[in-house]
Amino acid sequence: MIRVAIIGASGYTGLESIEIILRHPEAKLVYLTALPQECGRASEVFGRLKGRCSLHIEPLDLDKLGAEADVSLCCLPHKVSMGFVPKLLETGVKVIDFSADYRLKDVTVYESFYKVKHTDTKNLPAAAFGLPELFREQIKGANLVANPGCYPTGAILAIAPLLKNGLINTNSIIVNAVTGVSGGGKNPSTAFHFPNMNENLFAYAVGSHRHMPEMEQIATQVASEQVRILFQPHVGPFDRGILSTVYCEPAKELDADKLKSIYKTFYNSEPFVQVTDSPPAVKNVAGGNYCHVFATMARGKVVCFSAIDNLVKGASGQAVQNMNIIFGLDETLGLE
Amino acid sequence: MIRVAIIGASGYTGLESIEIILRHPEAKLVYLTALPQECGRASEVFGRLKGRCSLHIEPLDLDKLGAEADVSLCCLPHKVSMGFVPKLLETGVKVIDFSADYRLKDVTVYESFYKVKHTDTKNLPAAAFGLPELFREQIKGANLVANPGCYPTGAILAIAPLLKNGLINTNSIIVNAVTGVSGGGKNPSTAFHFPNMNENLFAYAVGSHRHMPEMEQIATQVASEQVRILFQPHVGPFDRGILSTVYCEPAKELDADKLKSIYKTFYNSEPFVQVTDSPPAVKNVAGGNYCHVFATMARGKVVCFSAIDNLVKGASGQAVQNMNIIFGLDETLGLE
Amino acid sequence: MIRVAIIGASGYTGLESIEIILRHPEAKLVYLTALPQECGRASEVFGRLKGRCSLHIEPLDLDKLGAEADVSLCCLPHKVSMGFVPKLLETGVKVIDFSADYRLKDVTVYESFYKVKHTDTKNLPAAAFGLPELFREQIKGANLVANPGCYPTGAILAIAPLLKNGLINTNSIIVNAVTGVSGGGKNPSTAFHFPNMNENLFAYAVGSHRHMPEMEQIATQVASEQVRILFQPHVGPFDRGILSTVYCEPAKELDADKLKSIYKTFYNSEPFVQVTDSPPAVKNVAGGNYCHVFATMARGKVVCFSAIDNLVKGASGQAVQNMNIIFGLDETLGLE
Amino acid sequence: MIRVAIIGASGYTGLESIEIILRHPEAKLVYLTALPQECGRASEVFGRLKGRCSLHIEPLDLDKLGAEADVSLCCLPHKVSMGFVPKLLETGVKVIDFSADYRLKDVTVYESFYKVKHTDTKNLPAAAFGLPELFREQIKGANLVANPGCYPTGAILAIAPLLKNGLINTNSIIVNAVTGVSGGGKNPSTAFHFPNMNENLFAYAVGSHRHMPEMEQIATQVASEQVRILFQPHVGPFDRGILSTVYCEPAKELDADKLKSIYKTFYNSEPFVQVTDSPPAVKNVAGGNYCHVFATMARGKVVCFSAIDNLVKGASGQAVQNMNIIFGLDETLGLE
Repeated sequence: MIRVAIIGASGYTGLESIEIILRHPEAKLVYLTALPQECGRASEVFGRLKGRCSLHIEPLDLDKLGAEADVSLCCLPHKVSMGFVPKLLETGVKVIDFSADYRLKDVTVYESFYKVKHTDTKNLPAAAFGLPELFREQIKGANLVANPGCYPTGAILAIAPLLKNGLINTNSIIVNAVTGVSGGGKNPSTAFHFPNMNENLFAYAVGSHRHMPEMEQIATQVASEQVRILFQPHVGPFDRGILSTVYCEPAKELDADKLKSIYKTFYNSEPFVQVTDSPPAVKNVAGGNYCHVFATMARGKVVCFSAIDNLVKGASGQAVQNMNIIFGLDETLGLE
Repeated sequence: MIRVAIIGASGYTGLESIEIILRHPEAKLVYLTALPQECGRASEVFGRLKGRCSLHIEPLDLDKLGAEADVSLCCLPHKVSMGFVPKLLETGVKVIDFSADYRLKDVTVYESFYKVKHTDTKNLPAAAFGLPELFREQIKGANLVANPGCYPTGAILAIAPLLKNGLINTNSIIVNAVTGVSGGGKNPSTAFHFPNMNENLFAYAVGSHRHMPEMEQIATQVASEQVRILFQPHVGPFDRGILSTVYCEPAKELDADKLKSIYKTFYNSEPFVQVTDSPPAVKNVAGGNYCHVFATMARGKVVCFSAIDNLVKGASGQAVQNMNIIFGLDETLGLE
Repeated sequence: MIRVAIIGASGYTGLESIEIILRHPEAKLVYLTALPQECGRASEVFGRLKGRCSLHIEPLDLDKLGAEADVSLCCLPHKVSMGFVPKLLETGVKVIDFSADYRLKDVTVYESFYKVKHTDTKNLPAAAFGLPELFREQIKGANLVANPGCYPTGAILAIAPLLKNGLINTNSIIVNAVTGVSGGGKNPSTAFHFPNMNENLFAYAVGSHRHMPEMEQIATQVASEQVRILFQPHVGPFDRGILSTVYCEPAKELDADKLKSIYKTFYNSEPFVQVTDSPPAVKNVAGGNYCHVFATMARGKVVCFSAIDNLVKGASGQAVQNMNIIFGLDETLGLE
Repeated sequence: MIRVAIIGASGYTGLESIEIILRHPEAKLVYLTALPQECGRASEVFGRLKGRCSLHIEPLDLDKLGAEADVSLCCLPHKVSMGFVPKLLETGVKVIDFSADYRLKDVTVYESFYKVKHTDTKNLPAAAFGLPELFREQIKGANLVANPGCYPTGAILAIAPLLKNGLINTNSIIVNAVTGVSGGGKNPSTAFHFPNMNENLFAYAVGSHRHMPEMEQIATQVASEQVRILFQPHVGPFDRGILSTVYCEPAKELDADKLKSIYKTFYNSEPFVQVTDSPPAVKNVAGGNYCHVFATMARGKVVCFSAIDNLVKGASGQAVQNMNIIFGLDETLGLE
């Protein structure tokens, strides 16, 4: 039994991680932590856990963590996480970090998009990027995994077969994505107040979303050449899911059948990425760790789509997938 | 042209009032006020008003109000309103007050449910209760109208024909109501954060909602005997509307046909109350000033239903209906 | 490994049953059947199953069923089910039937509410009523379990402690319930067309819903005296869940504390029924097999609430709970 | 008073047209028609009309139409409309047609996208394209107006200032749009069954949507050079609205400020097109005839956005705007 601690357990990805580990046959929750003002019985912090989890969410005690846990799912926010991760690692636990702090390898890019000095450049280089479909080998031996952002997970899985096979103009990629509102976290705001967000849909962060450089870094690695992406996020009136619609120019002659065959081959042995026969629907992946992808041609452009659950494949589910890999378990355990 | 001021224009009932007056053929907006921190161009405070309203929302200036307006729709919250209404009245404008401050005639009841001393017992007695279907005559001559609560509007219209005709045991009434989330106002909260409220439904304020004594007061007046009501509110995942389901014991022998005929007669000349042939649906009244009512028998009890839009017939629409009555206009103007 | 067949796998409860069994550590899917026109790869009938289930949904072959399965979850509709259940039983499999056909012990009541002659009065008497919290012992040895209706599950769990302890006037019960739209099944209809149902809420089947006699039968059994219930269902704009709000007159002096203690005692050892400290929320039980209940007093009446997921505790989850009991497994397996 | 007939009044655009005309100060409904099986009292066909409209929806009688109406809003479906429009015109009424049948000037394109022979090439050439912001002069004198498609309305208003001023590469335009479900019409379907569509989002008609050639035709006219558009539609879980996100390559050096000034100038005197300061939100235009547009630069591309209500500015509201123009009225009457 892998002993799992969740650091920053009081948010949406914390809850999702708890619910997944509760169903996991080879892992168990041993320790939940949060800021003092968010502590309490887990079943009181989250009504959904009533009768399902007897743990308390407590302020972090590093000695307790080191003594009781094998791995930490670190659900702290960007910028906060890098203040804790070095200490978590020193206790000897493996760390799967949900924040952006260990994703961007170029500190300058990180500091420019997150407007803060990076304070843990020591651990940064060794952090594996936790997208198993592309970086499984690095994850296997890692002590620290940077769990990918939700948007980059969807976008990269949608275009990886194109990038890897040199099929598109790497300067032409446009990622148009719509996320459910849980992507914005648990803190109430005017924009996400129900009577404002219900029956609504809008774009935000035009040209400036922090997931854009993350997408570019990974895409560049996959393509082995510089990739430039225009990423445009939107929020829609639903809880969970990200639908990514990606437009790009072909670098070779392509057609729908060729694309299908390339995608099927590329994801052939991946349990969680499924190539569909038509554009994927968010509801078919909501609540699960699956990513549905589809690619075709339209008006001379490649148009490809992916759908994921932002809290599962885009966060907690992918983290557990990474945990399974680190500990040599069947990658799908707890995620069926 | 009636010159209309809206006091407390920055909330949901403020916006709804603005949109109704913009369509009103015999009234025009002249003055919008709010707390200083909520002021600004109306079209910036509310994106919906872009290109439709050139007014600014400004801090209240009583002299300006007196000089420019004939009537104030006072959309201030409970307890705050009674601090302003006397001053509004002194400027010579008519006042239609959306708060509860002038609805409850028994100050003791008000003070016990609102936990505050009533500070304007001078104007309280003369305030007409603004439910036109029952108190049209008093409204006609009023300088101050207490616009009813949203829940009482729905509940009272559902049972008024029964109460007036002495058809039910006045001790047996249970009002089960579900409101849309706009009923909770514009301020973000954990409960109404989209990912918490979407796909959710729950009851609140068991036995303690402030609209319960208001319902009882009006029901008692209509029945000419003491009425006791158990009122149970719920919130559901939609923007607008209140569905009230009312259960009571018949005091006489009744059947579905008799009830239908009694309701049809009672509301025969009412433009905004429509007797339906089956249980009403919230969506059929959303966005309008209509109340749909239906009554029948089941298992020996009278079961009756009403549906209204909480922001229109339950607030701003009813206020404009009252305004039309005060100024001798066709009651339906601006509310088609 | 329990070998599970799902008869009528092409509907919502079929899909829900499939997803639960896929996660069940001691059961596996062996056979899925449906009407010929609804057959095909499970992963094509339900996009959610892509990559998760390699079975085909096939027309029913009784020999195959008998040879390959230990238990059938029979998800056929009312009236259809009783034509198949005798044949399923003859193959030697246990049957957990989701329809109403084996729930009502009084054939006259069944025939009057379902407008059809009962064609399997042979198996009817032996069918256990599959509400484990009340009938666990009968379920243990049963070959045929009548899985309860979704509304009766919610209503009975809300009031069982009152009935068992003789605390209420058994003639006074009103059950006001709101279900999510999945309760209406998978067939498109005008009422449940998205633009009609979204932002809507309405009551239906006043005094005539088929779950009313089912509730009364079980309540009567629990109370050991005749119980009469006025049941009023509504549909609201959400996928999953039933919120039941129950009103009744106390037969003894009761208060909130006494009620809490009675409920806590009654459900003390039940894994899936949780007594909450405030009115339960549908979202806290959505997707799981839990029932949250709460009872208190208001205006002299007992007001109690329950929340369940109609497709899980109200259908497929409860069926798996029953399956676990029949086969002597931990009741919570696959349902965490 | 303009006397208005609505042909095909039993669908969503029929209802929307009825509600708008009911509020119109210079127009009145005189005649509502539909297929025989969809006829009946308007207030029974549409519960929303109870107490608001005493007309019956009747089978079309051309003599009655000619005698009683000045203008027909023809809400018939594509392919059906061209069978009726010539007859409507012969009665002497003006016709505003909601279908695609008179929008595409190139019959070959029409026939290839609609898979049917065009049967009214006689009236086709004279039909004005009813987008007032671009073709106001042609609409003024027209007997027949082809009311634009909902997607083209949103897309063209988003990019017209760019096209008119030659600011973009006309080969580079990608229109990514998300519509609310009412865009799919009133007929129930599996895809739009509430439990399937709620919490869902998906793309459809990749490279093949019929509004693509319509967009290209109008864009080409506006740009005075051949324009090629990749249009990708999606459906999201809300009733009303279309958000269009348009990506294109600049043909000149542009920046956010320049774009803002160009858009402000272009739409300066348009009552219904508002240039916003940030990406527009569907909820700010829902229920009204407004289009909010915004354009900026990101990663070297022009990104522009528009939001409309698909049933109002995308259908019935725009039709009434066209009607107002034809009859020389203030363009905004009935649409405030």
